[in-house]
Amino acid sequence: MRAARLHAYNQPLQVDEVAPPEIRGHHDVIVRVGGAGLCRTDLHIIEGIWQNKVEVALPYTLGHENAGWVEAVGDAVTSVREGDPVIVHPLITCGYCEACRRGEDMYCASGSFPGINAEGGFAEYLRTSDRALIRLAEGVDPIDVAPYADAGITAFRAAKKAARLLRPGNWAVVIGVGGLGHIAMQCVQNLCAASVIAVDPSPTAQALARELGADEVVGAVGADAVQAVHDLTGGGAHVVLDFVGERGAERDAVAMLRQGGTTIVIGYGGRIDIPTIDVIFSEIAVVGSLVGNYTELSELMVLQAQGRVTLHTQRYALDDIGTAVDDLDHGRIAGRGVLLPVASGAASSARTGSTEYSTAMP
Amino acid sequence: MRAARLHAYNQPLQVDEVAPPEIRGHHDVIVRVGGAGLCRTDLHIIEGIWQNKVEVALPYTLGHENAGWVEAVGDAVTSVREGDPVIVHPLITCGYCEACRRGEDMYCASGSFPGINAEGGFAEYLRTSDRALIRLAEGVDPIDVAPYADAGITAFRAAKKAARLLRPGNWAVVIGVGGLGHIAMQCVQNLCAASVIAVDPSPTAQALARELGADEVVGAVGADAVQAVHDLTGGGAHVVLDFVGERGAERDAVAMLRQGGTTIVIGYGGRIDIPTIDVIFSEIAVVGSLVGNYTELSELMVLQAQGRVTLHTQRYALDDIGTAVDDLDHGRIAGRGVLLPVASGAASSARTGSTEYSTAMP
Amino acid sequence: MRAARLHAYNQPLQVDEVAPPEIRGHHDVIVRVGGAGLCRTDLHIIEGIWQNKVEVALPYTLGHENAGWVEAVGDAVTSVREGDPVIVHPLITCGYCEACRRGEDMYCASGSFPGINAEGGFAEYLRTSDRALIRLAEGVDPIDVAPYADAGITAFRAAKKAARLLRPGNWAVVIGVGGLGHIAMQCVQNLCAASVIAVDPSPTAQALARELGADEVVGAVGADAVQAVHDLTGGGAHVVLDFVGERGAERDAVAMLRQGGTTIVIGYGGRIDIPTIDVIFSEIAVVGSLVGNYTELSELMVLQAQGRVTLHTQRYALDDIGTAVDDLDHGRIAGRGVLLPVASGAASSARTGSTEYSTAMP
Amino acid sequence: MRAARLHAYNQPLQVDEVAPPEIRGHHDVIVRVGGAGLCRTDLHIIEGIWQNKVEVALPYTLGHENAGWVEAVGDAVTSVREGDPVIVHPLITCGYCEACRRGEDMYCASGSFPGINAEGGFAEYLRTSDRALIRLAEGVDPIDVAPYADAGITAFRAAKKAARLLRPGNWAVVIGVGGLGHIAMQCVQNLCAASVIAVDPSPTAQALARELGADEVVGAVGADAVQAVHDLTGGGAHVVLDFVGERGAERDAVAMLRQGGTTIVIGYGGRIDIPTIDVIFSEIAVVGSLVGNYTELSELMVLQAQGRVTLHTQRYALDDIGTAVDDLDHGRIAGRGVLLPVASGAASSARTGSTEYSTAMP
Repeated sequence: MRAARLHAYNQPLQVDEVAPPEIRGHHDVIVRVGGAGLCRTDLHIIEGIWQNKVEVALPYTLGHENAGWVEAVGDAVTSVREGDPVIVHPLITCGYCEACRRGEDMYCASGSFPGINAEGGFAEYLRTSDRALIRLAEGVDPIDVAPYADAGITAFRAAKKAARLLRPGNWAVVIGVGGLGHIAMQCVQNLCAASVIAVDPSPTAQALARELGADEVVGAVGADAVQAVHDLTGGGAHVVLDFVGERGAERDAVAMLRQGGTTIVIGYGGRIDIPTIDVIFSEIAVVGSLVGNYTELSELMVLQAQGRVTLHTQRYALDDIGTAVDDLDHGRIAGRGVLLPVASGAASSARTGSTEYSTAMP
Repeated sequence: MRAARLHAYNQPLQVDEVAPPEIRGHHDVIVRVGGAGLCRTDLHIIEGIWQNKVEVALPYTLGHENAGWVEAVGDAVTSVREGDPVIVHPLITCGYCEACRRGEDMYCASGSFPGINAEGGFAEYLRTSDRALIRLAEGVDPIDVAPYADAGITAFRAAKKAARLLRPGNWAVVIGVGGLGHIAMQCVQNLCAASVIAVDPSPTAQALARELGADEVVGAVGADAVQAVHDLTGGGAHVVLDFVGERGAERDAVAMLRQGGTTIVIGYGGRIDIPTIDVIFSEIAVVGSLVGNYTELSELMVLQAQGRVTLHTQRYALDDIGTAVDDLDHGRIAGRGVLLPVASGAASSARTGSTEYSTAMP
Repeated sequence: MRAARLHAYNQPLQVDEVAPPEIRGHHDVIVRVGGAGLCRTDLHIIEGIWQNKVEVALPYTLGHENAGWVEAVGDAVTSVREGDPVIVHPLITCGYCEACRRGEDMYCASGSFPGINAEGGFAEYLRTSDRALIRLAEGVDPIDVAPYADAGITAFRAAKKAARLLRPGNWAVVIGVGGLGHIAMQCVQNLCAASVIAVDPSPTAQALARELGADEVVGAVGADAVQAVHDLTGGGAHVVLDFVGERGAERDAVAMLRQGGTTIVIGYGGRIDIPTIDVIFSEIAVVGSLVGNYTELSELMVLQAQGRVTLHTQRYALDDIGTAVDDLDHGRIAGRGVLLPVASGAASSARTGSTEYSTAMP
Repeated sequence: MRAARLHAYNQPLQVDEVAPPEIRGHHDVIVRVGGAGLCRTDLHIIEGIWQNKVEVALPYTLGHENAGWVEAVGDAVTSVREGDPVIVHPLITCGYCEACRRGEDMYCASGSFPGINAEGGFAEYLRTSDRALIRLAEGVDPIDVAPYADAGITAFRAAKKAARLLRPGNWAVVIGVGGLGHIAMQCVQNLCAASVIAVDPSPTAQALARELGADEVVGAVGADAVQAVHDLTGGGAHVVLDFVGERGAERDAVAMLRQGGTTIVIGYGGRIDIPTIDVIFSEIAVVGSLVGNYTELSELMVLQAQGRVTLHTQRYALDDIGTAVDDLDHGRIAGRGVLLPVASGAASSARTGSTEYSTAMP
């Protein structure tokens, strides 16, 4: 099969012909990959930033945001069967450790993360486990929903943390209305009755925020953005969701809070740096948020199926991986970029019913 | 009346003869001060650290941790009456703003804080409001409980935040088993079934921690303490309560956490400084904790009355304020130092039944 | 002033000329009543059902759902002033008992309830306390919002209890889309992302439910309604909000639940009657819900001001109290009936800008 | 192997020689049963009460509260291995349905319940699934802990529901200090700082309650018990845990509540019967509580290992099943009765180190 692989850090991914994955364990499932979302984390992996964080040997296939169809199953698999359209939770988890038993399977003591520390989904076929799969509702095309598998649940989990803290009349600020932020905004609006301020210097992002019903949109950054939020909220935000986490956004996020407020950190790159006296006096909280768990993906797919949350995607053939990475790196993707590994073959083009790889922006 | 006042920053407090406070508002209450706890914040005020944080003209009377007897009440006061023994919540709050209506009166939009930005309790009489007072249970001497009014509820509020996160088998770490920490330890033990590790380099504090039933006691600091906690917990603490907040403890606190863990910041002086990528990957939370609200003081006084929480105090006459401050500054106070303003006069010595100002350590 | 008073049980209310209320306490406030909602509880009071529940001497003025303008204030009142448009929380509470300090002021140990056990708002003037008042936002006419003071917060509190239990993909059932139910539906939709099934045999109520965006509408009652809910939900509702509470609805509510479900009881008249073995096996909960507290009224007024919740009212002059009661008794009021005590005089008709007492249904 | 089986309703169990269970599925585990707790539900099954609740063909083996040693495992089992001492969660669950993924595996859509609707543990060997097993800590004898597998987690789950509602100074009432109640009392004491009133007419139970540290013990029943609780609590209990659920206890439980209180229903046999007006006016909740989930069993085993919760057992050889059932039926068992299926054979007597089947009461 064809797979886009990383051969060396800081080098472009290369599309190779490799042996397809095979069933090895009782619960293995092979998924034919219909859509594989492209993530800023893929750029960071290529840059070598993750080199010391995870153990993986080059070359290997990236792609941790996948959806497709079940191709083959291990002998103990009963929850899905061949042909089922599925979205793939990004982690392979054991189901037996304390974290898995509580439903917080991202903390699985022995989990693996295809596309990060194992062979990923920028390929025609992906090996995962039956525990990672959610069958898609009737009529849902895997290609349309692939980005929910990682971007979506990361945004959703952060929005859930926010919603638990927000009452009617409260203010939530979303910093960065990009791939994750535009989903988070919709989730916050669905999960509670707080008002939402979108903060983003990009006019495109501002337009998207308005289209999605932001109560207020702030185009400034830095001290001006902080001031604008304090003015609009009469004393500061109750919750900030920071999808940037670097270049000063992480400082602004803290400065935007009112007494008792919480900043939820999702974007990364910068540092949280606050005197402890300020943490106490303002009684603020800084709360990290990871990728969502399996049940969060289930809940998000319900919101998607109900039309409460929509996703903006831009499609690329697997062979165009270079262009896709380049577009992402230069901010030319509206919403989320999705590679279509099997759409390059005849078999699946009929299924997806799509021959053009254009922006799906309405 | 006599009052210990601050005339100039970095100068010793001076015991002056001043006019006693009078009833001015409908809800004013004058309290004859039986006990006034001495707090590290008093040292910081003398050092001028708070000079830019609050507006207050010198000279003024310190003391924000008070208990005593109702001396006089305003015309709209019905909840207490002359002679009632009371403990004084440190804030004077309005009762009408959103924060007060929710019970989070420390966030009162128009609150004042006697001893910090108004005349405090290192004096024979203190003016406060009826909303700040809790009548003491039969047989409770105000002198014995004064430190609950600030140290106590600060420890209790932090412990409540911790307990909400802790399940059986989980580990809570208390860094700093001093005035606040030794109360927090007891509160955590009462409010949940987690195991407690006390971390303190002082042998006296370690002994106190053991006496209070700590499951484990760590005498190391820095990397050794972090390692010890990871070893004892098999991967890190679920919650850390940091009562030091400076000199590296604030870094150790974060380093002691397991994935999904929370550090509660109560001590101050240092900085929280963490790369956002670590906040996310470990999905940790950094949560500030302020002085407790009125209902938290009520709950704590119940635990005190039931004997579930006990307090170690060391008493000083008001005239010995200099010694008391000096003792605190040099770590010579076991538990909490308490000034006895009215015990210096004849009227109240009969009430307190105490003529010696010695350590109350058992 | 004129007031509609109950002289004898099971007799029509009588509009009398009586002395207006006067300021007696430091925190008393006299409100000129712009709008006074008519409630099914008023019918029950007239019928004598409440005779043994509360102590009150006849004759007295009914009306516990009021809004208007501040006419006079006691000497300790600072939160409102003469002329302020206000909505009146139905209880007069002390502000000092444990319940009040926690914000659950409906449990106030010494509260009174004008219109139920004290002189109410079917009159030109009402005496209440400053703690009961919320200033209305610019441009809000008291007449339009009076029903939020009781019907609104009762619905809102129940909806909040429901929302805390509901996840995306879950089902909430609202039984009875009348005065309270149609507000609750909107609140549930605002506070969470669950789907809503409205159950009501009345075609008018069904139309209202559809207009307000119910996901499903069931017109059946009894076993058919139960079956319909099980079919629509694939196993039963996660939460039922029962605004009827009698004539079988209370049994249907329980029967509609899935394992682990909760029925919230707001309507009354019938009995909850379930074998304990069924309570356990299905692990269901039966949760009573009372009128909301002050902060819930504040939150609801925000939702109203933001246009997220709207209210359907039908207006009556105070002199038409007989017609209003009759209309309510015979199901001829769409939404909520509101009496306009001061609109009958010249002074206020200018304010309300309304001379016709017609249905405000859109 | 030998197994105590039900051949006909209302007939004594019969110890038969039957074929031992075999591994059939990938995740099957065969457990050699060291201890099998005897439960009041076993009496109800024999009486035929459950006949219409579950589908099961006679004869079959009872026993749903088991612990022992792993004898054999299916080919996909990795979490335990032969020889491991284990306690057996009573349900066999799928691990894939929504309930299982959230950790609420008692709601598993396709679960089975050995001893109730499948072959149980009153036998030398039991077939269960790897998902049901918790390895026991070093030195823990399965026989000593078997009752935690059902009685224990039922009590623990109820106590957790209670603890979430209880603040310092609040009152919890435990009705029925028997097999479950005496565990629940200890759990409540560990999980929160509320005070506990034990209500039981049996002098033995009262003595046990006192030994376990009940703050108050009430020996009355009916109106006297209700009055006693109101007197002790100054207005009613905040939470009642009703482990009787019949013979009037279920009415007393409701009558003991204060406004805003909650009764947790664990015992069964009677009916919850309350006018809806009372449910609303007192704003009470009636909350069913089922057997605990797997993670609750894990947490409880931690409390057991830490010595925070202890269990009183009385042991019987499998052949003495008739005596055991008779003793239970006539209230002659102190704490919980436990059958020792494999202790009757030579192989395991060495392991258990116990040759006498006497009361384990301290």
